[in-house]
Amino acid sequence: MLALWLEDRSLRIRDDVPRPSPPPGEALVRVRMAGICNTDLELVKGYYPFTGIPGHEFVGHVEAAPGHDGWVGRRVVGEINAACHTCATCRAGRPTHCERRTVLGIAGRQGAFAEYLTLPVENLHEVPPGLSHEAATFVEPTAAALEIQRQAPIQATDQVVVIGDGKLGQLVAQTLALTGCALTVVGHHAAKLALLSARGIATAHAEALAPRSSDLVVECTGNADGLALALRLVRPRGTVVLKSTYAGNTTLDVSALVVDEVTLLGSRCGPFAPAIDLLVRGLVAPLALVSARYPLVQGLDAFAHAARRGATKVLLVNGPL
Amino acid sequence: MLALWLEDRSLRIRDDVPRPSPPPGEALVRVRMAGICNTDLELVKGYYPFTGIPGHEFVGHVEAAPGHDGWVGRRVVGEINAACHTCATCRAGRPTHCERRTVLGIAGRQGAFAEYLTLPVENLHEVPPGLSHEAATFVEPTAAALEIQRQAPIQATDQVVVIGDGKLGQLVAQTLALTGCALTVVGHHAAKLALLSARGIATAHAEALAPRSSDLVVECTGNADGLALALRLVRPRGTVVLKSTYAGNTTLDVSALVVDEVTLLGSRCGPFAPAIDLLVRGLVAPLALVSARYPLVQGLDAFAHAARRGATKVLLVNGPL
Repeated sequence: MLALWLEDRSLRIRDDVPRPSPPPGEALVRVRMAGICNTDLELVKGYYPFTGIPGHEFVGHVEAAPGHDGWVGRRVVGEINAACHTCATCRAGRPTHCERRTVLGIAGRQGAFAEYLTLPVENLHEVPPGLSHEAATFVEPTAAALEIQRQAPIQATDQVVVIGDGKLGQLVAQTLALTGCALTVVGHHAAKLALLSARGIATAHAEALAPRSSDLVVECTGNADGLALALRLVRPRGTVVLKSTYAGNTTLDVSALVVDEVTLLGSRCGPFAPAIDLLVRGLVAPLALVSARYPLVQGLDAFAHAARRGATKVLLVNGPL
Repeated sequence: MLALWLEDRSLRIRDDVPRPSPPPGEALVRVRMAGICNTDLELVKGYYPFTGIPGHEFVGHVEAAPGHDGWVGRRVVGEINAACHTCATCRAGRPTHCERRTVLGIAGRQGAFAEYLTLPVENLHEVPPGLSHEAATFVEPTAAALEIQRQAPIQATDQVVVIGDGKLGQLVAQTLALTGCALTVVGHHAAKLALLSARGIATAHAEALAPRSSDLVVECTGNADGLALALRLVRPRGTVVLKSTYAGNTTLDVSALVVDEVTLLGSRCGPFAPAIDLLVRGLVAPLALVSARYPLVQGLDAFAHAARRGATKVLLVNGPL
């Protein structure tokens, strides 16, 4: 089958990758559309040593699910962590942190930038008919945005700043706006800031914000400067949520964290069901975030486009554009 | 009056410091005993630009309290943050983080390594007769240890590691042990580890602990290596509490925090009333942590002793030893 293949920090198109065969408990999914995430761009830069097919945001149709035939023909999205359900972490109720997990297109499991993928049936969520392929590819990152609220409950009285106006920052802002909090997004790109303004979300340059005054700051820039700014903006006893993964270390003044009793919170994958619900109800509206669509065979062009300054979501399509 | 004086990272004894005069709302306290904390040692190293009398752990007698005569003659300890009660942070219920605060012996307020200090009356707590001067000097750091439980409630089912067997680590361990959690202290000093063993608290070398398996890790070493170890030991979705302030930055792999959804929690001053209660009831027993007592006039020797490898608490005494 056709697939994008990452090896030694180099990406190429292959047409000779064997179509996967679902092991027991898993489904074979024909990928219809997949989104390029910053994590994919970071994988290519070497953030994590992955060899194989990247891609973890997708929508597709189940073509086979041995022993779970009811799934065949359904349109699905899928949670990306495949857990063992027997290790101590799984049994403690944290399967997304399973120590033996594989992660779609990120760790130990071939991903979605291909004609087919396999995932455990338990990871699948059916996509309601009202949701387009395009919108459905945003279920995974919308779920990741909702993880923030699972970890740090937000109130309408909170002053919240999102740093980063990119595709993740936009989804985070859209989900946080639903809480009624006083929300401001910090960004640099006029076109991206305009997308937020069009939804009634306030935007600002960093210099315009009062330091040490935000209850919660979400770092979505994908670089170390974002954390430094977040720590400038957060109030004493406030919370900084870290959403972006990137290669390399950053420096931190630990004493400032201690003196101000700030909480730093790492945040990753989130709940799919409420993400689907928000997208179906139109409360999260992702389509304006699509920069471009490419057929899978032009995957290298798609990655180059996604890496361009100012780009938002780039989609890879199997079949007619 | 006699006082220890810090200026340009250099400490000296002065006998010409004017005795302070309490402004309205404050009390004049004759210091009986004061403890040297690692923060004091870090102040001398330049962790924070403070000029004047250091020292923030003390017990003393109120000699004057204009308008609050009921306090005169009482033996007291004192909370170290003097708040304005009018700024937004104070009005939001976080007076220990008041943006205009002064902090005894740390920021904008002369400290306890002197014959006298002044503090707002509202900061004072009377010391019950059953508590010795020595034990009373431990109220402030015991309160700081209790701040951990205020920020991160701990259950008897939790696996908890304290990194650092120094004076703060010992108090933190004693307070955490009261929760019934499965507690282990990591340290290097045989004599200090023996103090913990004598109280039935398990100790271990870092290499003996399973990585990624502790629910909560408290960093009390006062150096950057402690944070790195804490991040190795904490489980996914676990919490690392940072208790120690020290000069300089440390490096951090932000992506690891994100992927493991770890919480980093800065933690500083805590509640005095329960600290006094635990000391009175003997549930926290600090006296074995006293390495030495020096008269105030030998304050430089006392600091040298406190900085020595293996030293625990060094006390400065006004009056007969």
